[in-house]
Amino acid sequence: MRAIQITEFGGPDVLTLTELPDPEPGPGELLLDVSRAGVNYADTHQAENSYLAQAALPLVPGAEAVGRTSDGRRVVALLGSGGYAEKAVAPAATAWDVPDAVDDLSALGLVVQGASAWLLLRRSVHLAPGESVVVHAAAGGVGTLAVQLAKAWGAGRVIATASSKEKRDLALDLGADVAVDPAEPDLKAALIDANEGRRVDVVLEMTGGSVTDQSLRALAPFGRLAFYGMASRTPPSPVQPAALMAHSTTIAGMWLAHVFQLPGDVMRTALDELFGLVADGRLRVVAGGEYGLAEARRAHEDLRARRTTGKLVLDPSR
Amino acid sequence: MRAIQITEFGGPDVLTLTELPDPEPGPGELLLDVSRAGVNYADTHQAENSYLAQAALPLVPGAEAVGRTSDGRRVVALLGSGGYAEKAVAPAATAWDVPDAVDDLSALGLVVQGASAWLLLRRSVHLAPGESVVVHAAAGGVGTLAVQLAKAWGAGRVIATASSKEKRDLALDLGADVAVDPAEPDLKAALIDANEGRRVDVVLEMTGGSVTDQSLRALAPFGRLAFYGMASRTPPSPVQPAALMAHSTTIAGMWLAHVFQLPGDVMRTALDELFGLVADGRLRVVAGGEYGLAEARRAHEDLRARRTTGKLVLDPSR
Repeated sequence: MRAIQITEFGGPDVLTLTELPDPEPGPGELLLDVSRAGVNYADTHQAENSYLAQAALPLVPGAEAVGRTSDGRRVVALLGSGGYAEKAVAPAATAWDVPDAVDDLSALGLVVQGASAWLLLRRSVHLAPGESVVVHAAAGGVGTLAVQLAKAWGAGRVIATASSKEKRDLALDLGADVAVDPAEPDLKAALIDANEGRRVDVVLEMTGGSVTDQSLRALAPFGRLAFYGMASRTPPSPVQPAALMAHSTTIAGMWLAHVFQLPGDVMRTALDELFGLVADGRLRVVAGGEYGLAEARRAHEDLRARRTTGKLVLDPSR
Repeated sequence: MRAIQITEFGGPDVLTLTELPDPEPGPGELLLDVSRAGVNYADTHQAENSYLAQAALPLVPGAEAVGRTSDGRRVVALLGSGGYAEKAVAPAATAWDVPDAVDDLSALGLVVQGASAWLLLRRSVHLAPGESVVVHAAAGGVGTLAVQLAKAWGAGRVIATASSKEKRDLALDLGADVAVDPAEPDLKAALIDANEGRRVDVVLEMTGGSVTDQSLRALAPFGRLAFYGMASRTPPSPVQPAALMAHSTTIAGMWLAHVFQLPGDVMRTALDELFGLVADGRLRVVAGGEYGLAEARRAHEDLRARRTTGKLVLDPSR
């Protein structure tokens, strides 16, 4: 089968199109004919081995795929790796049937980014109706969904940040009340301004560095900042617990992989709700571009250069 | 009237019994005949001016009192200061009527410690049924109530820590499933052992230093530590947001004063529920000792030496 393989860690150049034997499913695994594979920002970390989880070589990247099983089920699956290929092996425990009303792009957009947005709002920050919500990187995979979910679940003012006029326009189109440039020199003041002079209740943050620092300072008492990524590759300042107490501030780290350590099938619950919202037309996954397997390098380059908005997918048939 | 006054900051010795003119209520204030005044650990910080809020001299300490208003209402009130006296002025906005079924001690034990335990479990950590909860300082004012509330609200295993056998026995008597000495050299391991080998879901922490550090490391994925005090006067280690992400850990600072900046009358909601639980016999405030005004120094000494368990009150009639 055709697949993208990495034999040394590095930037987009290490993604090489090659021919590999079909993978063999073991016990508890499914073999998928991949219809589309998702491309995630985390894949760029995996390729350079800077992700939270250590990677091993050689590696076929790709943590999510949608396709058919040998017995004809259409599923979306989370994989440790192997998605950038014509065929992929998925643990049966992380493969979920997809309703007909949900297309490939939407299924791929929901299984990681949608589930992340769901967990952030429901479990990390416990959004309450009427609360103000800042969504950083609002034109990204998680951001586009978080803006819509916050609105669907009764948030008050939703404040989007995004790095270009086009991305901010997309966030507004998805329902954000206002959009802010995160490069504002006084971002704390800009966020409070955007919230009509009031401090904000909730921040979803995946940028790192001063964006995290400034956002924490913009929080109202009992405000919560969920920290679920560090796209700038710059750590925020360390946080003193006593300072959190002095402002009744919560900071909630979130990494999706941990959802499988929670009791109950939280992913099934999240995906059921998300699939239903898509089927009802209340939630949409923004298409960010479809690439052939041979174009995987360009997909990573586009992601790293922040040229993309929405969900990127690979079509392994080309 | 007789009152305790501080004219210079310092330890318990600065608490001086003196005669002062009766205070005069201004607009929006009530004059209380104090029946009992509460003594809080925070008062010892206020006396030495090491609390989150700065104090000004001269000062009559005492942030809570229960008593009668001039029109005969029996209320429990939060005060900026002035409780350690025969008469006190309270803002009407922070005075709540007390049902007959709730005695002075219970009303005083609920207005700060009870409301804190309610906010910690309901707003800071969002306790879910079945979750394991570590309550540090479980024999203290907040701790004794938090143990009981966690159980009443469906917690799974409740793990108490307290510094002496007597305090640990009290925590067990209040419903904790197991009690641990926080001086255990490997506290992280001791907490996980006490949870039958599993990491813990929730920690309520007011100690600081290595107790906070070790407790954070004992958390399960999506675990939450609420930080609401630093009784050891030793800061915990600074927290890296990226480390919180790597373990899906939440740290939630909480200072009760901020409850008044929340929309809605959260204190009224909390006290209604707490008064109801006391009236129904499902929650009890542990008596920690009653002191005359002239014994205020000894009350602070006992608190600082950690010789007390439960709620300390002053009787201004003696």
